[in-house]
Amino acid sequence: MKKYAIGLDYGTLSVRALLVDIENGNEVAQAVYEYPHAVMETHIPTGASLPPAWALQDPGDYLDGLFTVVRSVMSQSKVLPEEVIGIGLDFTSATILPVNKDKMPLSMTEEFKNEKHAYVKLWKHHGAEPEAAFIDKVARERNESWLSMYGGKISSEWTIPKILETLHHAPEVYDKADYFMEAMDWILWEMTDTLTTSACTMGYKAFYHHETGFPSKDFFKALDPKMENFVEEKFNMPVLPIGACAGRLCESMAKQLGLLEGTPVGTGIIDAHCSVPGGGVGKPGELMIIMGTSSCHLMLADHDATIEGIQGVVKDGIMPGFFGIEAGQSCVGDHFAWFVDNCVPADYAAEAKAKGISLHQLLSDKLKDYKAGASGLVALDWFNGVRSPLMDFDLNGLIIGMNLLTKPEDIYLALVEATAYGTRAIVESFEKAGVPVNSVVLSGGIPSKNPLIVQIYTDILNREIKVCASDQACALGAAVLGVAAAPESITGYKDANEIAAKFAKLQDKTYIPNPEKVAVYDKLYAEYNTLLDYFGRGGNDVMKRLNRIREENK
Amino acid sequence: MKKYAIGLDYGTLSVRALLVDIENGNEVAQAVYEYPHAVMETHIPTGASLPPAWALQDPGDYLDGLFTVVRSVMSQSKVLPEEVIGIGLDFTSATILPVNKDKMPLSMTEEFKNEKHAYVKLWKHHGAEPEAAFIDKVARERNESWLSMYGGKISSEWTIPKILETLHHAPEVYDKADYFMEAMDWILWEMTDTLTTSACTMGYKAFYHHETGFPSKDFFKALDPKMENFVEEKFNMPVLPIGACAGRLCESMAKQLGLLEGTPVGTGIIDAHCSVPGGGVGKPGELMIIMGTSSCHLMLADHDATIEGIQGVVKDGIMPGFFGIEAGQSCVGDHFAWFVDNCVPADYAAEAKAKGISLHQLLSDKLKDYKAGASGLVALDWFNGVRSPLMDFDLNGLIIGMNLLTKPEDIYLALVEATAYGTRAIVESFEKAGVPVNSVVLSGGIPSKNPLIVQIYTDILNREIKVCASDQACALGAAVLGVAAAPESITGYKDANEIAAKFAKLQDKTYIPNPEKVAVYDKLYAEYNTLLDYFGRGGNDVMKRLNRIREENK
Repeated sequence: MKKYAIGLDYGTLSVRALLVDIENGNEVAQAVYEYPHAVMETHIPTGASLPPAWALQDPGDYLDGLFTVVRSVMSQSKVLPEEVIGIGLDFTSATILPVNKDKMPLSMTEEFKNEKHAYVKLWKHHGAEPEAAFIDKVARERNESWLSMYGGKISSEWTIPKILETLHHAPEVYDKADYFMEAMDWILWEMTDTLTTSACTMGYKAFYHHETGFPSKDFFKALDPKMENFVEEKFNMPVLPIGACAGRLCESMAKQLGLLEGTPVGTGIIDAHCSVPGGGVGKPGELMIIMGTSSCHLMLADHDATIEGIQGVVKDGIMPGFFGIEAGQSCVGDHFAWFVDNCVPADYAAEAKAKGISLHQLLSDKLKDYKAGASGLVALDWFNGVRSPLMDFDLNGLIIGMNLLTKPEDIYLALVEATAYGTRAIVESFEKAGVPVNSVVLSGGIPSKNPLIVQIYTDILNREIKVCASDQACALGAAVLGVAAAPESITGYKDANEIAAKFAKLQDKTYIPNPEKVAVYDKLYAEYNTLLDYFGRGGNDVMKRLNRIREENK
Repeated sequence: MKKYAIGLDYGTLSVRALLVDIENGNEVAQAVYEYPHAVMETHIPTGASLPPAWALQDPGDYLDGLFTVVRSVMSQSKVLPEEVIGIGLDFTSATILPVNKDKMPLSMTEEFKNEKHAYVKLWKHHGAEPEAAFIDKVARERNESWLSMYGGKISSEWTIPKILETLHHAPEVYDKADYFMEAMDWILWEMTDTLTTSACTMGYKAFYHHETGFPSKDFFKALDPKMENFVEEKFNMPVLPIGACAGRLCESMAKQLGLLEGTPVGTGIIDAHCSVPGGGVGKPGELMIIMGTSSCHLMLADHDATIEGIQGVVKDGIMPGFFGIEAGQSCVGDHFAWFVDNCVPADYAAEAKAKGISLHQLLSDKLKDYKAGASGLVALDWFNGVRSPLMDFDLNGLIIGMNLLTKPEDIYLALVEATAYGTRAIVESFEKAGVPVNSVVLSGGIPSKNPLIVQIYTDILNREIKVCASDQACALGAAVLGVAAAPESITGYKDANEIAAKFAKLQDKTYIPNPEKVAVYDKLYAEYNTLLDYFGRGGNDVMKRLNRIREENK
């Protein structure tokens, strides 16, 4: 009998199912369901309007999507229910909703359907900025030990700020919620009738530590007296490692999906982090970078580490048995898009149109035979602030070295190089903390479409780079965790790490550093690093002052 | 009897005559003659080709132009020869040619018509870079006292480098030249049969000092043993102050021009410097800025001054009785042109086209209601190196403070502001040296066409600004010097300063500093100044290192 697993990838706008052959991870079928309510930024379905910076979802979309995509891959593939040996799932995070003890999201109740705080607060909901700042202040004053795991700064995108926002503005929702849950955990509960959560979301987004657990009652009380017993009252779920079995399909869900009752379902993982198993990264030394509008850097280590300006270090948070480290850059593809939208002249646009190619492609073509250093430019990739290693969003971009011969493609190149220098600064902060980076895997649309950018990263990082071949690395990673949820006796695999190595779909080409360019880039990186120190660590706080002046004169 | 004067403005591509009424400076007629040979950059008229960076002219064009434009204004106006009481002239400089004792330019002799070094080396001829560097080195080693008058750096555009280049590469031309002359002095010689030169060209371009004269024989010997007696052998002409009479029209020239023999002709002045009398600046405290692709800052002082990074301080060099100070910015209009050519997106180009306006105008329109500081940007105006106050051409541009909301007009504004901060740095260096700047006059196409830019300068300099109304400020200034060449008994004017004040054509509007913007710009200028120090005075020589890397990797 052939054996298959299903990976479910819950993204921001849609859910995708990938049915794979567990022998090799090959794709057998896939299906996508776009959420009918997409991201609600202006109003909720009942018509009530939303303040700026809000981003909600309707939990019904997740369930409808689940039924649709699973049935679709099963019917497309003619795979039999008994041939599906496991299901895994990744999800955006922190994507948080209040749920009652009957598994019912409060937004689905008559009582709260008009209450915006009863809906799912999507990861990019930014309504909790004041709460994030307040929590940051409280944690700092109390010198909370877990703060150092997060590079020392609380984001409004995380779990507790979103919940505290609800308590502040809709206390009746807070009171009526039996649980505040990651959407992924609510879906898992629906699927398995078992209440769990994962080290991944709790570790990266909710201050959980594998040894000390959640922050103390005193801390939560300091946030709000009503939150003193928050963990036992609203957050009472076992925290499972990645690669574990979260539960088994319950009877009703099995029926609705057309699968067997009892099919194992893996612990949920954050979507970005799922690129690690999906990209075949299963052991320390390999850095996975998901390059999109921003970049996420994920790394396994066999020991805990204190690293400047990272997003989190979580045991079993990405792959079982290792500490998962997350770092990030705020602005990568966004840099290039800003440049193409704002700074490329009309004759270039006409040339691209005549050739039937994008401006990105045109600029890359013009750089085909570029020489490192020939542009004379260095930029700081800070147009959207800095995550790692500075964790400072009060910084801005810089370009230095222009003369009257500087061409648009020179500046484009400088921005690409700047993001690579930024990555190198992260790599060096890892290594300084005793976490060596031997090779790199890139995933995302940018590296799969643009070999020039990959080679620039290769030369600037001076490390071999492989690129994910699958454009469904997340869904493939979810399938890995679906296989890992099933017993070794059925799958033949020892653990998720082994499955990931087997399933990985990487491009054949390995990018090799070019020694000549490496030598030049070492010099340019030294300049970048000097500028990083000067403008980013207090040598000259001109960027912060410019931001103040900007705000005062809006 | 009405009285008139003729101003002759010898520019880079043409000569213009302006006939003015000496009572008020009002224009009666004008005529332009474009040099048939224009600027010779690739070959000379006999066909021999030129190396890169060369820029020659044919002296015959100057004479043909003289005849044409003077006859033209006389015939247009019906003014009688006896009504013309003086002629003045400005010319590009250092624009140097070798001439024999019969007034014949060597390029016009059979012997040298194929020799490129026998032609006029135009001000922007850059073939003498090696000679400039060598002279700089020799002067520095010998600690020549006059070096400090020039901001401490010798330019290849100046007189002696061009002559040394001829000695190095065409010694037979050097030997046969009885004189090396400014083209303006050759024309004056042709007109008056009198050999003179002016404090202006000698002071700003040829190391002449009103007290110590030219550099010593030892210095010239150190350049080349054959140059030991250079001044008495090839440069033997009286140096007259600006505002003096250089001579009177000789018989043959008077005939050819249709004027009276004996008509007074004023000392020649450099074209840029001629904006000072042309803009009505006749006394200390007023700064004249000629804004073009680059900017030239001219100022009168009643005492000598040592000012950082200026182009020269010359007694009687701009207006009689005062020390004329020249400073400069390498890149002003060039900045804006670079931006418009390279960095403005297609949708802006389409919008400008639809509105039938230039991109400059479109960007200025978008900035109509701008608030100082709202862009959050600061730039360094160093895309073409820095003249004053750093005199360092090994520097480059910088833009700081961009985020993903930065628009093209924000960057355009930042570049405009940067040139104004650069001017403020020059003004502050003047004042630090005891030369107060009370008000400012701008001339050139940019200020006459763009009130937004003038207002930005007004707010950043925090000084009232007037703008030249005449687009012929140079020719008008030449007419001032033509009147000054004639006796007071005929003109009724005491000196050139008084005539300039009378003739000045300024726009009615006086630009007044806006206190709110001044306050913000004070803060932003402080940031500019910190960056100037850091990147321009050795805090971080990253720009120089980037230039080395750029050169190594071309």
